[in-house]
Amino acid sequence: MHIKTEFFEDYILGDSRESLGRTITETDFVLHAGQTGDFFPHHMDAEWCKTQPFKQRIAHGTLIFSVAIGQTASQINPEAFSKGYDRLRFIKPVFIGDTIHTKIAISEKSEDKKAGYGKIVEHVEVYNQNNEIVMVCDHILLAKKK
Amino acid sequence: MHIKTEFFEDYILGDSRESLGRTITETDFVLHAGQTGDFFPHHMDAEWCKTQPFKQRIAHGTLIFSVAIGQTASQINPEAFSKGYDRLRFIKPVFIGDTIHTKIAISEKSEDKKAGYGKIVEHVEVYNQNNEIVMVCDHILLAKKK
Amino acid sequence: MHIKTEFFEDYILGDSRESLGRTITETDFVLHAGQTGDFFPHHMDAEWCKTQPFKQRIAHGTLIFSVAIGQTASQINPEAFSKGYDRLRFIKPVFIGDTIHTKIAISEKSEDKKAGYGKIVEHVEVYNQNNEIVMVCDHILLAKKK
Amino acid sequence: MHIKTEFFEDYILGDSRESLGRTITETDFVLHAGQTGDFFPHHMDAEWCKTQPFKQRIAHGTLIFSVAIGQTASQINPEAFSKGYDRLRFIKPVFIGDTIHTKIAISEKSEDKKAGYGKIVEHVEVYNQNNEIVMVCDHILLAKKK
Amino acid sequence: MHIKTEFFEDYILGDSRESLGRTITETDFVLHAGQTGDFFPHHMDAEWCKTQPFKQRIAHGTLIFSVAIGQTASQINPEAFSKGYDRLRFIKPVFIGDTIHTKIAISEKSEDKKAGYGKIVEHVEVYNQNNEIVMVCDHILLAKKK
Amino acid sequence: MHIKTEFFEDYILGDSRESLGRTITETDFVLHAGQTGDFFPHHMDAEWCKTQPFKQRIAHGTLIFSVAIGQTASQINPEAFSKGYDRLRFIKPVFIGDTIHTKIAISEKSEDKKAGYGKIVEHVEVYNQNNEIVMVCDHILLAKKK
Repeated sequence: MHIKTEFFEDYILGDSRESLGRTITETDFVLHAGQTGDFFPHHMDAEWCKTQPFKQRIAHGTLIFSVAIGQTASQINPEAFSKGYDRLRFIKPVFIGDTIHTKIAISEKSEDKKAGYGKIVEHVEVYNQNNEIVMVCDHILLAKKK
Repeated sequence: MHIKTEFFEDYILGDSRESLGRTITETDFVLHAGQTGDFFPHHMDAEWCKTQPFKQRIAHGTLIFSVAIGQTASQINPEAFSKGYDRLRFIKPVFIGDTIHTKIAISEKSEDKKAGYGKIVEHVEVYNQNNEIVMVCDHILLAKKK
Repeated sequence: MHIKTEFFEDYILGDSRESLGRTITETDFVLHAGQTGDFFPHHMDAEWCKTQPFKQRIAHGTLIFSVAIGQTASQINPEAFSKGYDRLRFIKPVFIGDTIHTKIAISEKSEDKKAGYGKIVEHVEVYNQNNEIVMVCDHILLAKKK
Repeated sequence: MHIKTEFFEDYILGDSRESLGRTITETDFVLHAGQTGDFFPHHMDAEWCKTQPFKQRIAHGTLIFSVAIGQTASQINPEAFSKGYDRLRFIKPVFIGDTIHTKIAISEKSEDKKAGYGKIVEHVEVYNQNNEIVMVCDHILLAKKK
Repeated sequence: MHIKTEFFEDYILGDSRESLGRTITETDFVLHAGQTGDFFPHHMDAEWCKTQPFKQRIAHGTLIFSVAIGQTASQINPEAFSKGYDRLRFIKPVFIGDTIHTKIAISEKSEDKKAGYGKIVEHVEVYNQNNEIVMVCDHILLAKKK
Repeated sequence: MHIKTEFFEDYILGDSRESLGRTITETDFVLHAGQTGDFFPHHMDAEWCKTQPFKQRIAHGTLIFSVAIGQTASQINPEAFSKGYDRLRFIKPVFIGDTIHTKIAISEKSEDKKAGYGKIVEHVEVYNQNNEIVMVCDHILLAKKK
C-alpha cells in the first residue's frame, strides 16, 4: 500500500494489473455473515446445501465483491476518487476453499460532467484457481486533469 | 429470515420494503479492513483523515454495500436468483456512528433471454440518520415464470 | 427481522415456530473463545480431545445457547420483554460441522406479579442434523395485557 | 487456566470466588450480533435507542451470560461436568462501557439420580462498576463422588 | 487469570510452568491476517503454497508469538513489568491444525540499571503436537526488589 | 503487496522505508485479547486502569508488534526468509486512539553460517502520532547470495 499521484492523462487505456491470490475460507463466510447479518442457508447451512444444485455452501456475492475490490487496493491516488460500480455480475459460485485473484484493466477514458475531471473505467475480473471468471464489474473513477 | 415462494408474476412494480436501522461502528470499519485487506488511511488513520476534506475516517464503499444488501436479506425466494448489480453509486460518505437503513422498491419488470425467467430490478437506496441518501444501486433478479 | 405488536392475550398456548438451520463451524468455536475468554481444551485443543470420551472438540454451552437464541430473534414485539431463562440443559454435545436449528413453542401463560403484564413461557428446543435434541430451555417473557 | 481435580466431597458450601473485571465494549456488541445473527435495534441502532426508555444500546442477554460464564472458566475439574443453568435472570441492562465482574458461590450440595455423582449448585452473580447486580443464574454441576 | 504478588527475590532460577494446548486453526490465520493486514500468500493462498517447499499455508510468525505469549498470561504480578523480548526465533513452521503449548522457565536473574528493580529472564519455548520446538524467545521482566 | 526479488547483494545499508499510519482502536484491543486469550485488566478493564499510573487501557505488546510487522509486509522477496527478531522493546504504552506507523532501515549486513546466504538486519521503529517511538526491534533476515 503506497501513494502514487496519477492524473487523468497518466492513465493508459489497456494498462492492467493483477493481484496475488487468496483462498476463500469457511472463516470468511462466517465473518461476512456476521458483518452483514445475512445468514441465508445458501452460505451457512451445509446440510440444506446438500439438497441444492451446488451441493455445498456458496459465498455471499458481497463477500467476493468486497475481497476482490480489497485485492486491488494497493495504490492510493490522491488525485482520483471512486464514483461507484457498473455491471457487477456473479458468473460462477465461489466455494469454501476456492482461491481467487483479481485483474484490472483500464477499459475506458472519457469526459465527465464534473469540471476539471475525467472519467476512468477499470474493468475488474475475478478468477478462481481453475482460471474461470467468477465475477466481473466496472469500477468508475474520476481523476483530476493536469 | 424466512422462505416465501414468489414467481415473476407475483412481483408488483412499485412495491417497496424498508429495513430497520443499524449504526455503523468503528468495529465495522476494522472488521471490514480485516476481511478485505483494504487498510487505506481513508478508513483506518484518524490522524491523516484530520488533514483531509471530511476530517474523519470514512467507511469503505464495500462495507456500506455489504451491510445494506445484508439488511435486505430477510426473505428467501427459492424461485429467484441474483444476477448482479447495476449503477452502484456512493453518494455521501458514511462516518463512524452514522445509522443507516435501506429501502428497496421494485423498479422494473421485463423479459429476459433466459427461457422461463423474467427480469426484476429492485432499486436500493441507503439512508443515513439525517435521511440523506448515501448509496444507491439496482439489484437484478431473475425470477421463474409460473 | 421485523416489528409485530403482540399483547399477552395474542399469544396462543401451543403455537410454535422453527428457525432455518445453521452449521456450527470451527470459526464459531474460535470466535466464541475469543469473545468469552474461555479457551478450555474441550473446545480448543484437538489433540487433547482425542484422549477424551467424545474424541473431538465440543462446542461451548454458551455458544449453542447464544446461536439458538439468535436463531429465534426474528420478530420484535414492543409490548414484551425478556425476563430470563429457566431449565437450560445441554443434552448432547455439538461438534464442529453439526447443523442446528431451533424450535419454539408457547408452553405456558400465567399471571405475573408485575401489574398489567402476563407471563409467557416459550419452550426452546435445539436440534442437530440427526434430529436429536442437543439443548433445551424455557424462555420467560412478560407481555403487556390489553 | 489450569487443571484441579475436585470430587463432590471437596466442594464446600459457601465457598466463593470472584473474577477480575472486563469492560463491555461496542466491539463486543458487534461481534456478538455477528456470532448470533441477532441485529435487533436494541443492540445495534443507536438512533432508535435514543427514543427508548434506556436512551442507548443495551447488551444482548446472551452476551452478558457468555462473558460472565467465560469469566468463571479459570479452573478445569476433570471429575465434574456442567449440566446446565437455572433461574437465569437479567436484572439490569448492561451498556457500552460498563465493566462487569462475576462472583460464584457454592449454594447447594445434594444427591443426584446419576449413580456415583452428586449435584453442586454454583450461584453466579454478575456486577457492574457501580456494584449493582446485572445478572444472576444457578450453574448446575455433577461431580464424581470419591 | 489471577493476581499474585512476586518480588525479584521470589523468582527462583529454573522454576518453570507449562500451558495447556491450543489448536491453531484456519480461523486464526484469517483473523491474524485481518488484524495485521499481512495477507502474504504464504499464509493466505493455499494454491500458491502447493508450489512451495512446505506445500501448505504456514502461520504468521506474529500469530504464533502472540498466541504463545497469550498462553503464558495466567498470572498478574503487580510488582513486575515486561520490558521486551530477545532472541525470538521461528524454528519450524506451524500449519493449520497443529496444536501448540508453551513452556516458560526462569533462566536468568541479574541486576538492572533501574534502581530498586532486578532483571528476570523467562525462556519461552513453544512446542507442537509432535513435541518439536517451533519457536523460542527470552522474555525480559523487571521485578521490584523487596 | 507485490513480489520483488532481492539478493543479499541488493540490500543497501541505510536504505529505509516507512509505512502509512493506522489508528489503534478499542476493536483492535478486543480482537487481540480474543486471538491470544490474554484478557489482563491492563488491556480490558477500563475501571481498574483508572486506578493505575496510565489511567487508561494500554495495548498488548504483542498487538503493537503484530500490527507493526504487518505494516511492513508490503513486498515479498522469494530469495529471503525471516529468522526472527532481536531486542524487541516496548518503550511507551499505546492507548486506544493512538495512530502508529513503522519505519524500517537496513542496519546491518553480515556473513551467516548458512551456506549461500547472508544476514540482513532491519531495524524497526514504531512511532505514535506525536512522533514518539513506542516500540523497536531488529528483524533478522537471511537473503540468498547471487
